[in-house]
Amino acid sequence: MQELTLAKTAAWLQQCEDAYILIHRSPDGDCIGAGYALAEILQQLGKRAAVLCNDEIPPRYQFMLPEQPAAADFPPKCIIAVDVADAKLLGSRIQEQYGSRVDLCIDHHPSNSDYAAQTCLWQEAGACAEPVAAVIKAIGLPVSGKIAECVYTGLVTDTGGFRFSNTAAGTLRLAAEIMESGVDTAAINTRVFESESKAKMLAEAKMMSSLEFYAGDRIAVMPVTLAMRAQTGVTGEELEDVAGIPRKIEGVLLGITIKEHEGECHISLRSKEPVNADEIAEIFGGGGHRLAAGITIKGTVEETARLLVAQAVKHLPKEQA
Amino acid sequence: MQELTLAKTAAWLQQCEDAYILIHRSPDGDCIGAGYALAEILQQLGKRAAVLCNDEIPPRYQFMLPEQPAAADFPPKCIIAVDVADAKLLGSRIQEQYGSRVDLCIDHHPSNSDYAAQTCLWQEAGACAEPVAAVIKAIGLPVSGKIAECVYTGLVTDTGGFRFSNTAAGTLRLAAEIMESGVDTAAINTRVFESESKAKMLAEAKMMSSLEFYAGDRIAVMPVTLAMRAQTGVTGEELEDVAGIPRKIEGVLLGITIKEHEGECHISLRSKEPVNADEIAEIFGGGGHRLAAGITIKGTVEETARLLVAQAVKHLPKEQA
Repeated sequence: MQELTLAKTAAWLQQCEDAYILIHRSPDGDCIGAGYALAEILQQLGKRAAVLCNDEIPPRYQFMLPEQPAAADFPPKCIIAVDVADAKLLGSRIQEQYGSRVDLCIDHHPSNSDYAAQTCLWQEAGACAEPVAAVIKAIGLPVSGKIAECVYTGLVTDTGGFRFSNTAAGTLRLAAEIMESGVDTAAINTRVFESESKAKMLAEAKMMSSLEFYAGDRIAVMPVTLAMRAQTGVTGEELEDVAGIPRKIEGVLLGITIKEHEGECHISLRSKEPVNADEIAEIFGGGGHRLAAGITIKGTVEETARLLVAQAVKHLPKEQA
Repeated sequence: MQELTLAKTAAWLQQCEDAYILIHRSPDGDCIGAGYALAEILQQLGKRAAVLCNDEIPPRYQFMLPEQPAAADFPPKCIIAVDVADAKLLGSRIQEQYGSRVDLCIDHHPSNSDYAAQTCLWQEAGACAEPVAAVIKAIGLPVSGKIAECVYTGLVTDTGGFRFSNTAAGTLRLAAEIMESGVDTAAINTRVFESESKAKMLAEAKMMSSLEFYAGDRIAVMPVTLAMRAQTGVTGEELEDVAGIPRKIEGVLLGITIKEHEGECHISLRSKEPVNADEIAEIFGGGGHRLAAGITIKGTVEETARLLVAQAVKHLPKEQA
């Protein structure tokens, strides 16, 4: 990997011209924030820069965009990827056009596949907004105003509101600086965390009402049926984070979320110590990590639940008498 | 108010003996964390110190307590209150015994009623754990290990996970230091935020399923009936934070949570700009702040909802054609 220091990345950006900034498909708060912060800086330096994404920017993140986002209506002289660990994560349309000619990648994923000519990789960062902010400072420009809003949103969304273990001391210090620069961080938090669609809330109510408990309430099974989706109109994307719900319950050591699809079920296992979700997933040909694993099983929700619970009970710790 | 500087507070603590540390009734993560951090420091200085609380320490916060919490089995030579804005917040039992003889109060509430002989008040702090940590540093001792866990829990709970507007840059910097000292902050976050009782989850499912929408989905009414409480076994304390649910829904400008009690309803209004919840509450003899207000109305949930919605629609902004 041709790995660039912050100073070299800053120097490279200062000499580049007419940049396309690529962010990953299914864009999240971090790639949008990091991408638009970088575009704004290049524009402040008098350059043309446009952000390109395979998919739509979700409504909840549109506040980060400038009133008139720059159009990609100029032939690019350089291609920069931000928060994109591999060219295939650009999404097919963008990958086809630009995936093999990325000049610079700024990223924080340890899994970065080294697809770009040069990479500025900060593995210790909780969010890609951190190396982007560091590069902006290395250029000698302030992280303030709109740029600071973008950076803060990246920090706070990629670390689950500074809750996940990827949060670094540097993440919190950068957030402190941004707060002091006058950004209304509480308003951003409300926007990104205290907001969900009516359809999602009604779907969650149905899922939570359908929770089933086994093994002395140490296993909780939450079905997400096609009927629930049809009745509420919730989208698959909105359901991506619901797998955490059953494990939240006090005393539950294994949460099993079963999403019904045509002819098969997609299962998410979430466990607490000492239960190994990965071991249970492997029995059914799935896998993952110790506390979070996934499986696909052909069958109905009821059959799948029965199969999983029968195995899962064997992996619980012995109850103390 | 006899207001003490950090240095004077540190000096006072170094000379005090046989301390009782009082925290407020219905104890939360901040008063428990700040109180036990201070007790630990006094013990490290070779003094006797015990934490006293009118009410039980909730299970989710018991991880902060030492294995053998010091008993209040010695006659106190000094009384210290932590995170207690007024003597009546000690709870009747503790207030009666010690409320009028508090030697030192360490607090962060602007509303502090100056009931103690001396007060160390840090109004700019997001949590009371901040002045306590500052005093520990002023004594010359490190904020590390068990003490750092207590302080972090105080910071993170009183600021809603660094989300509320009371979060200060100093709050984040202190959290960064604690993270660097080696505390597993992600584990604390999981413990305090990713945990709720089965009864509460099932009650929330019922409340969310019963949401009613008015005025083009700009008003959402959530009933919390006595039947829901009886069916799930959820406690009144567990229901304290549910009023935020209806306002979370995209497009909702006013969330109305109606808690049924014997013969009357307790209503929480939560609004988004430009709706003024306080104005609506005042019509019914209630009050509060612009975005959060409360009312008590005699009547059934249905009657109350009808009355409130009829007034509330008049306070919505005109819809754009």
